[in-house]
Amino acid sequence: MSELVRFGVSLDKALLEKFDRLIRTRQYTNRSEAFRDLIRQELVKEEWERDQEVIGAVTIVYNHHQRTVLNRINDIQHDFLNTIISTQHIHLDHDNCCEIIAVRGRAGDVQRLSNALKSVKGVRHETLNMSSTGKNIE
Amino acid sequence: MSELVRFGVSLDKALLEKFDRLIRTRQYTNRSEAFRDLIRQELVKEEWERDQEVIGAVTIVYNHHQRTVLNRINDIQHDFLNTIISTQHIHLDHDNCCEIIAVRGRAGDVQRLSNALKSVKGVRHETLNMSSTGKNIE
Amino acid sequence: MSELVRFGVSLDKALLEKFDRLIRTRQYTNRSEAFRDLIRQELVKEEWERDQEVIGAVTIVYNHHQRTVLNRINDIQHDFLNTIISTQHIHLDHDNCCEIIAVRGRAGDVQRLSNALKSVKGVRHETLNMSSTGKNIE
Amino acid sequence: MSELVRFGVSLDKALLEKFDRLIRTRQYTNRSEAFRDLIRQELVKEEWERDQEVIGAVTIVYNHHQRTVLNRINDIQHDFLNTIISTQHIHLDHDNCCEIIAVRGRAGDVQRLSNALKSVKGVRHETLNMSSTGKNIE
Repeated sequence: MSELVRFGVSLDKALLEKFDRLIRTRQYTNRSEAFRDLIRQELVKEEWERDQEVIGAVTIVYNHHQRTVLNRINDIQHDFLNTIISTQHIHLDHDNCCEIIAVRGRAGDVQRLSNALKSVKGVRHETLNMSSTGKNIE
Repeated sequence: MSELVRFGVSLDKALLEKFDRLIRTRQYTNRSEAFRDLIRQELVKEEWERDQEVIGAVTIVYNHHQRTVLNRINDIQHDFLNTIISTQHIHLDHDNCCEIIAVRGRAGDVQRLSNALKSVKGVRHETLNMSSTGKNIE
Repeated sequence: MSELVRFGVSLDKALLEKFDRLIRTRQYTNRSEAFRDLIRQELVKEEWERDQEVIGAVTIVYNHHQRTVLNRINDIQHDFLNTIISTQHIHLDHDNCCEIIAVRGRAGDVQRLSNALKSVKGVRHETLNMSSTGKNIE
Repeated sequence: MSELVRFGVSLDKALLEKFDRLIRTRQYTNRSEAFRDLIRQELVKEEWERDQEVIGAVTIVYNHHQRTVLNRINDIQHDFLNTIISTQHIHLDHDNCCEIIAVRGRAGDVQRLSNALKSVKGVRHETLNMSSTGKNIE
């Protein structure tokens, strides 16, 4: 962990009171912790916009009775071998499976993987969680 | 304007440097100004989630050759007389009009107006800008 | 208006029933109208991602007692003369003003205007409505 | 899988051409498949808004050198035993860990878990992937 720096911030009293209420609702320990979080959110947004190295989670829900869906999903994942870290498989019910695919790579590649999976016949829903390697958000 | 309060914030040196770079990119005057903005964004989100009094802008793009579209849009706006402040009309090209409707009211009512306009035959696009009366974000 | 084309779509019965319920809730006239809307949403997203010519509305809320805010906002708008169509001004209360700025231009320029206004001291909230010239979403 | 229903949709020729281009870009097999996807996106949004049973993935990135972070994260996960299915742990680098937590439960409970993890000291980023049990999006 890097060196801590302390500096002053000026806020209108009323705005600060509302911020303190928000901090309590969201259970932050203190103001500094809440500020860090707001800053990091913005930095992670930037990492994705600038196509930097990112971490993500692709979640897909699919009907495994659909012929070919398992093969297609597997084939696509093999096309992105260098982007995919590991996959968590959840059996939702008799028909539906969920896979949560942990990914690491350039933001653009992760987006391409996400698009490829979304369009597979049998995949009912696909979403992408945009996170960070943590390196740039000390 | 309410009284200014000054207090200390602790951040890791590396995180602070990245925040300062972000501040320069986005042309903020200083850190306090950037912090205020991050806080206000969160507070405005809350105003909308809690169905409080809000300010918004509904933007619609429509083809005025479509029979009935002008009447429907006008009728709907009259149903929301108490929510609508005023409307800006822009002639985009031979076919398309744009109206930007300034609204003030409960978040729920603004959402209902937005939905009603979105579904009108001839309306090609509708979006809602979620803003604030400014009262709670000093 | 361009020529209408009719074609067939296959959906699972249960999914179609849920879609029909959604159509009723959102007050669409018929399925075709609802489909058109879903398609247009995706096309407008693309226009913004590809930096094409777009229509937008920038909403700012500011405290006009803040020294210099009026001049700064006005100066910035003059830097974007070719992007701004017109501005609607609303007096919210004793302290707060709202301006809704209708814009037309390249998506990137609109984003730059939006960022410039967001960072002005005294501007309490800024949001950008991303809409379309209507040309590509018949 | 439930019974397939076929019905007609009318679209303007120019809009249909643009939709077909979008379908090719996103690699959908055919129009019906693309329509299904657009419908499902809207239905999943509704499931979350109405606090129904949902599937999600919570991704957190944290610095494991931060004292107490591991215990806090573990304690919180135990408070949500009935919501959490399983957790994937990724060692990002010397400092940073990533956990992707597969969750199933009421949308509100998942949101509460997400908020609780976001506010832990040492957690640098937290995001929530909103997905579906697949039951209502045949």
